[in-house]
Amino acid sequence: MINVGIIGVGTVGSSVANILKENRELITARAGKEIRVTKGVVSSLNKKRDVDIPLSTNPDDVVNDPNIDIVVELMGGVEKPYEIVTKALKNGKAVVTANKALLAYHRYDLQQIAGDLPIGYEASVAGGIPIINALKVGLSANQITQIKGIMNGTCNYMLTKMSDEGVAYEAILKEAQELGYAEADPTFDVGGYDAAHKLLILASIAYGIDAKPEDILIEGIEKITQEDILFAKEFGYVIKLLAITKKIGSDISLRVHPALVKKSQMIAKVDGVMNGISVVGDRVGETLYYGPGAGGDATASAVISDIIEIVRVGKSSPMLGFKKPFNSENLRLAPKDSIESEYYLRMQVLDKPGVLAKIATILGENAISIDIFLQRPTNDKEVATLLCSTHKSQERDIKKAIGEIEKLEVVRDSVVMVRIEES
Amino acid sequence: MINVGIIGVGTVGSSVANILKENRELITARAGKEIRVTKGVVSSLNKKRDVDIPLSTNPDDVVNDPNIDIVVELMGGVEKPYEIVTKALKNGKAVVTANKALLAYHRYDLQQIAGDLPIGYEASVAGGIPIINALKVGLSANQITQIKGIMNGTCNYMLTKMSDEGVAYEAILKEAQELGYAEADPTFDVGGYDAAHKLLILASIAYGIDAKPEDILIEGIEKITQEDILFAKEFGYVIKLLAITKKIGSDISLRVHPALVKKSQMIAKVDGVMNGISVVGDRVGETLYYGPGAGGDATASAVISDIIEIVRVGKSSPMLGFKKPFNSENLRLAPKDSIESEYYLRMQVLDKPGVLAKIATILGENAISIDIFLQRPTNDKEVATLLCSTHKSQERDIKKAIGEIEKLEVVRDSVVMVRIEES
Repeated sequence: MINVGIIGVGTVGSSVANILKENRELITARAGKEIRVTKGVVSSLNKKRDVDIPLSTNPDDVVNDPNIDIVVELMGGVEKPYEIVTKALKNGKAVVTANKALLAYHRYDLQQIAGDLPIGYEASVAGGIPIINALKVGLSANQITQIKGIMNGTCNYMLTKMSDEGVAYEAILKEAQELGYAEADPTFDVGGYDAAHKLLILASIAYGIDAKPEDILIEGIEKITQEDILFAKEFGYVIKLLAITKKIGSDISLRVHPALVKKSQMIAKVDGVMNGISVVGDRVGETLYYGPGAGGDATASAVISDIIEIVRVGKSSPMLGFKKPFNSENLRLAPKDSIESEYYLRMQVLDKPGVLAKIATILGENAISIDIFLQRPTNDKEVATLLCSTHKSQERDIKKAIGEIEKLEVVRDSVVMVRIEES
Repeated sequence: MINVGIIGVGTVGSSVANILKENRELITARAGKEIRVTKGVVSSLNKKRDVDIPLSTNPDDVVNDPNIDIVVELMGGVEKPYEIVTKALKNGKAVVTANKALLAYHRYDLQQIAGDLPIGYEASVAGGIPIINALKVGLSANQITQIKGIMNGTCNYMLTKMSDEGVAYEAILKEAQELGYAEADPTFDVGGYDAAHKLLILASIAYGIDAKPEDILIEGIEKITQEDILFAKEFGYVIKLLAITKKIGSDISLRVHPALVKKSQMIAKVDGVMNGISVVGDRVGETLYYGPGAGGDATASAVISDIIEIVRVGKSSPMLGFKKPFNSENLRLAPKDSIESEYYLRMQVLDKPGVLAKIATILGENAISIDIFLQRPTNDKEVATLLCSTHKSQERDIKKAIGEIEKLEVVRDSVVMVRIEES
């Protein structure tokens, strides 16, 4: 008999308790032992919860309970769960967490505290998709050269709707909030931070690279308009919020931003609230993992797979986790400006002679060559929209050029830049 | 130091040896121990091979070598490898195999012989895609309700080409043979047998169901023509060779056949030689796994992931494998005729008054209701092609109706039937 305590019995926590109960026979057969939830910790006992386990408001009731073998942390936040998980590990308990923010900041500390105790975190990235397991085990023969993922269902839902139904960003954000896909303050999702947390976890498994969210390039989808979506469509692209890590030599780039992706790519076909992660290994080539990135039962499925694996195998696989033992190539975090990419630009300009020449000159002087160029009228007769895409350029060049363009008197507002991910 | 012997040093075997050498540092870090190939067994020493390991022609040199810890079986066939793997297990060696035919026939016997010794078989299904691991570990909280896979790259390449380029079956088969995607005798691939072997392996993990290829419905793609492809396109479908297992109550259906699949489904987007497998769990919903299903390095990636896992964890996970301990629901193999599906039919008829009425009457009498109906002229003025799709019907009804239609004097040749997989 294995006893589990759950800290944070919300949607996911309730699902964990209920699935362990409802699929008990099957899970017992697979784990080799019966697993039961003996205690749950909640912030308030007044709220009605759809679970059948003893509840407490004190995390110590779980982490200090000598009968509990595995502590499942589902409370969210960073410093408070760090404290609780630390205490659980020090008490010799295995830990399973779905908390990406906790791991984005404290994964290496926690691994050090854990030593040989297992920490499961399958649920922290892409909900029900077993991507952690694929990276740790399935692809372990490979040097990972690239991971490119749609890891935020809220953004993907919004971008898909904007593309399919021609809805404006603000309208679809409101709808997503009403449906419960987006929070009242949506910044964490639409700003790219949620995806960045997940990316850091995957990059740690692939490269043992230690970085915090503050260290990497993060851009959200807030500036994407129907004009951008239509430009993308016209030239065979879709716009997706991608979390990307690439290994080029000993440089590891880490970035989250919207990107134009060729329609024919498999990842371009990941629509709605679904998640999809493409992983390229030096030997296997590209594999892709698709499924629900959120939801109580889907996330609980991942949490329970960790619990079963801990019961079955009894140890973690830290060598592919956060201990970064393999770094013989002295991998380093690539500077944010070192990205080389194709770019899409959108700007509002006064519809006057010579404007185009000025902009084209600035691009040329910065060694940026234009691929596609469109000028469109706007509702304001005096203002035109310029849309263009470039051939491959350096991030620092495009940023310099944008700075110079924005200084032109004929250019209204700021220039919107979206990267193009060709492969 | 872990010593590996490889039986069968062809394309995959050479890749295993070379990757273990070229990615040695990374693999050692991940496995915790150095892994080296100390011996290879080949059928002939005269052939030049691109590997740097001592070769022998006698499998006993590997299976009886007390220094070898893990035997990798890559020789193909059924009875000969069964004998060799049995000997290796009896000598206390862990086994890794990519041999789907061996497992299609002997997986339960081998598990019994192995006892607690690990048998790794990630490479036996869908090459480089870690689908075995996903089913065994990642989805272990779920009752699997459906697996639907494109698991034969040859067929998928041919069907994709037929659809994209309007090429006839025979022409594309010839091209696939020239490219090395199809064998001189292509029956094993195009007849659906290869996919059936893989399906049986996946169904064993999901359901513990013991069946042989002879027990299940297997149809190939040999009868698919451009007419079928065009009908599918016109109504928003693509044709794919699918390997399907579904759990309905305590009935497990197992079948391989071409199917019309809605274009909007993720699996419909798996094109060319790639493989894709959709798995539905009762809790997680649908997840999908995509990647290269064949090729030396991709398959070797899976073989080595098993080796690393055996070195790391030191035991197998038989409870999700072939021991079928979980069968409390008394699952049984559903009769082949119990399928309920929508159907697509193609037939050549004499272009005479009353023909359509006769066929429609037979369908109606067998409780089959028509969804779409098309009649098209052929090059032969006296003959027309009838294409139709039906609403949901019973397999036994549609087969009875087809039998009756084929007996009509006005019907030429046999009726071609393809199932429609709606979800």
